[in-house]
Amino acid sequence: MPEFGASAIPTPPALSSSRNTTPTPTTTSEEESSQGSASTPDRPATAIPELKRRSKYRHVAAYHSETRASCLSRDSNASPSFFGFRNLVVIVLIVMNLRLIIENFMKYGVLICLRCHDYRKQDLVLGAVLFSLVPCHLFIAYLIELAAAQQVKGVIGRKKKSDLPNGKQMEEQPDFRRTWVYIAIAHTVNASVCLLLTSYSVYFYINHPGIGTLCEMHAIVVWLKNCSYAFTNRDLRHAFLHPSPENNLPTIYDSCPYPRNITIKNLTYFWLAPTLVYQPVYPRTSYIRWNFVAKRVAEFCGLAVFMWIISAQYASPTLLNALEKIALREWASIAERVMKLSTISLVIWLAGFYALFQSFLNALAEVLKFGDREFYKDWWNSPSVGRYWRTWNIPVYQFMKRHIFSPLIGRGWSPFAASVTVFTFSALLHELAVGIPTHNVIGVAFGGMMLQLPLIAATVPLEKMNSQAGKVMGNAIFWLSFCLVGQPLGALLYFFAWQAKYGSISRGLK
Amino acid sequence: MPEFGASAIPTPPALSSSRNTTPTPTTTSEEESSQGSASTPDRPATAIPELKRRSKYRHVAAYHSETRASCLSRDSNASPSFFGFRNLVVIVLIVMNLRLIIENFMKYGVLICLRCHDYRKQDLVLGAVLFSLVPCHLFIAYLIELAAAQQVKGVIGRKKKSDLPNGKQMEEQPDFRRTWVYIAIAHTVNASVCLLLTSYSVYFYINHPGIGTLCEMHAIVVWLKNCSYAFTNRDLRHAFLHPSPENNLPTIYDSCPYPRNITIKNLTYFWLAPTLVYQPVYPRTSYIRWNFVAKRVAEFCGLAVFMWIISAQYASPTLLNALEKIALREWASIAERVMKLSTISLVIWLAGFYALFQSFLNALAEVLKFGDREFYKDWWNSPSVGRYWRTWNIPVYQFMKRHIFSPLIGRGWSPFAASVTVFTFSALLHELAVGIPTHNVIGVAFGGMMLQLPLIAATVPLEKMNSQAGKVMGNAIFWLSFCLVGQPLGALLYFFAWQAKYGSISRGLK
Repeated sequence: MPEFGASAIPTPPALSSSRNTTPTPTTTSEEESSQGSASTPDRPATAIPELKRRSKYRHVAAYHSETRASCLSRDSNASPSFFGFRNLVVIVLIVMNLRLIIENFMKYGVLICLRCHDYRKQDLVLGAVLFSLVPCHLFIAYLIELAAAQQVKGVIGRKKKSDLPNGKQMEEQPDFRRTWVYIAIAHTVNASVCLLLTSYSVYFYINHPGIGTLCEMHAIVVWLKNCSYAFTNRDLRHAFLHPSPENNLPTIYDSCPYPRNITIKNLTYFWLAPTLVYQPVYPRTSYIRWNFVAKRVAEFCGLAVFMWIISAQYASPTLLNALEKIALREWASIAERVMKLSTISLVIWLAGFYALFQSFLNALAEVLKFGDREFYKDWWNSPSVGRYWRTWNIPVYQFMKRHIFSPLIGRGWSPFAASVTVFTFSALLHELAVGIPTHNVIGVAFGGMMLQLPLIAATVPLEKMNSQAGKVMGNAIFWLSFCLVGQPLGALLYFFAWQAKYGSISRGLK
Repeated sequence: MPEFGASAIPTPPALSSSRNTTPTPTTTSEEESSQGSASTPDRPATAIPELKRRSKYRHVAAYHSETRASCLSRDSNASPSFFGFRNLVVIVLIVMNLRLIIENFMKYGVLICLRCHDYRKQDLVLGAVLFSLVPCHLFIAYLIELAAAQQVKGVIGRKKKSDLPNGKQMEEQPDFRRTWVYIAIAHTVNASVCLLLTSYSVYFYINHPGIGTLCEMHAIVVWLKNCSYAFTNRDLRHAFLHPSPENNLPTIYDSCPYPRNITIKNLTYFWLAPTLVYQPVYPRTSYIRWNFVAKRVAEFCGLAVFMWIISAQYASPTLLNALEKIALREWASIAERVMKLSTISLVIWLAGFYALFQSFLNALAEVLKFGDREFYKDWWNSPSVGRYWRTWNIPVYQFMKRHIFSPLIGRGWSPFAASVTVFTFSALLHELAVGIPTHNVIGVAFGGMMLQLPLIAATVPLEKMNSQAGKVMGNAIFWLSFCLVGQPLGALLYFFAWQAKYGSISRGLK
């Protein structure tokens, strides 16, 4: 109340102007410029005339001079921007996670511990042996293709001698097909022995799931490259045997026509290149930007450390806490754990995606002067699950499309049947990549991939709606299926199976 | 590997065309339309010519036909949209809070309990008495103004009789000023007695903080209305005594010139109307939309229940858990508690804001046919703390501007000094509104309001930058100060002080 006492007896402006040194009109304009400038943008244009003809009386101004609606009402002409709430959501997210970090620290202290990690010497030795086995298999693949090329050169030579009309004779000949059967069997045996040997060793002899995953992934990648190498050279050989204008090959291959691409150097480049699709020739850059490579490598290392810290400090305790809930089938608790895990696994997944697809593959491509760096597209905007699978992993997508989907369509299969085949094949590879290193081929990865098919079918209409609402809904369904059900539940189940078989992988946690 | 065995020996298209019923060109176009349509939008336009002249061979297509950059690289021409990540942020926020709800339920069960609430009969009776006291004080205010109007009418009558040149004589007369001193004293005593009586009763005799807050808020609102009524009528009276073209009053007042507005009906309307600024005439709507009223009332009730559930189920345990941490000065734990509380208090605050400013005030305005519904502007977009205080509570802002800021500026004060006065006054009111019902005048609310001044000063440059970055930063600072430091810390401290004095307000929680 002292305020009221102090300002309760102000003289009216007409009287006070005789006491004040500054005359009333001057102070009015001063107020206009100071307070008015701050508030004018908030006031609708229609209110200004009323303010302009302001009375000299301070306490009578008509602040309520017109009928106006609240800006959140439907009566309001324009709905306001919600830009601020977007910022708020981000801030709340950061604060909530900071809080969880503090909570985690108070509960567990620092769990990151270099020495606690339980890897064995046997794992390292065996891993190194498996890695060095792979080039041998590639060398065998090269020898197979070399033999095929020699045979074809022989055919061409004989053809030139017999000097018959070219096309007609060749199509009647079952020669090409018979040869291909032998070559295909040779490639299948060679590639599969490599994959089977690696899988067997990893499953039975490599204890550490990280080392196991690296070996298994490498074997799968090389197996896929082997397939692509065999198929592509098969078609190139056929085109070489049947030169005709309709059999045109991509112009980019012109610099290295068929038999000349069968060299160890060419195959080694394909082995190292960040692609699963064999081409005799790739678009290349003209020089290596080493500072670009250094930046990407630094990113990769930083993200690897980040992922390791997140896994050790946040994922491990959450997974361990979840174990007994799973064992007891406490569904509410399992849901709670999955939700907690979903944020953590999402962060790890995003970091891993960036580390692998942006940092690692770009660094590798730069060193190899590999020109086509489209390893992913903007999958995070996917308005459907199908779009996600077509955009997040371009190397695998290109392999599937070129060597499975497209040939099946060419044989008259329906796109649906071809898609089912692609996803079944992909599901098998996922189960291999996850089940073998964790020593639990329990089919969760396989099932998760197969579950994508109905999800894809369900979100196709949303993508085709072509409206903003459809996009947002499709995108939300994609994210939910991806980061809520897919990743964390899978991780939980494989972790549970692992723990059921072996107990903890880390001595520090009990 | 069965996949490889099954599809490893596809015949080349040229040979297989004799076996397949559909010729190759047809299937190619079928693939174009099915798969091509899905993937074409993803592919840059430059890639299409290469695909158009596709070979009949399926396995040789040049997927890597040009040099391209990854879309997240700086080499990329256009940076991609991050629309999907915005959706992800919202989803993660929802999931994280769902998880906390499950966690809370597993930990505490259901805490909502109607009977557990500890309110006393005395509180209700005293609250009703205090509420009914208010109209009596308004009636006294009316009588004071009536007397003043009578006196002025007498002056006008005498002036007409003496028939002297009007303006000159009146300004020399100290009559108006002397009368105003008496009227001001009468109003001050009347209004302050009402406020002091209510504050005294609430502080010493009303135990329940909710009932206490309602009584205290009502008393403060009526006190402010009383001030506005006195000041406005003072200026209207002066204008009535000194009619001149430069003393022009707002045109909206023309329908009810000065002494005619001194009626009980007019004052009662001002008492009930959703404004703190007295005007003889307000913009009115022509009829009451009862379905609009019903919707707003339903919103209000729904939000009230929602806030009660959130408070009982989430805020109470968090506050109780925080008590011992505060007592032990465990700063990390206090920070963790403040962060946890910040989300909860933010949700309660937003619900309360909407319930009061959108639902309640709009319903009240509709019933009273009060036309100006601008009770708030889009404060959530505030690029500065100052902008927030000018937009979130328009009734109080208008009162402060019309009756404190503007008159002080008129007397030659600097805008800074006037702002400090406004915030000091507002801080006193905040301390009254919070400290009295919680029986702890500990000055936290006062200090919190005074702290706004440096925050406002700090964010003014960000608002004036007029760039998107400046806006986002200013908005982030506003939200952080508002929902991280301001609300939850204040709530914690008053709750702590309350518990230190009385123990729990709810029997259900120990």
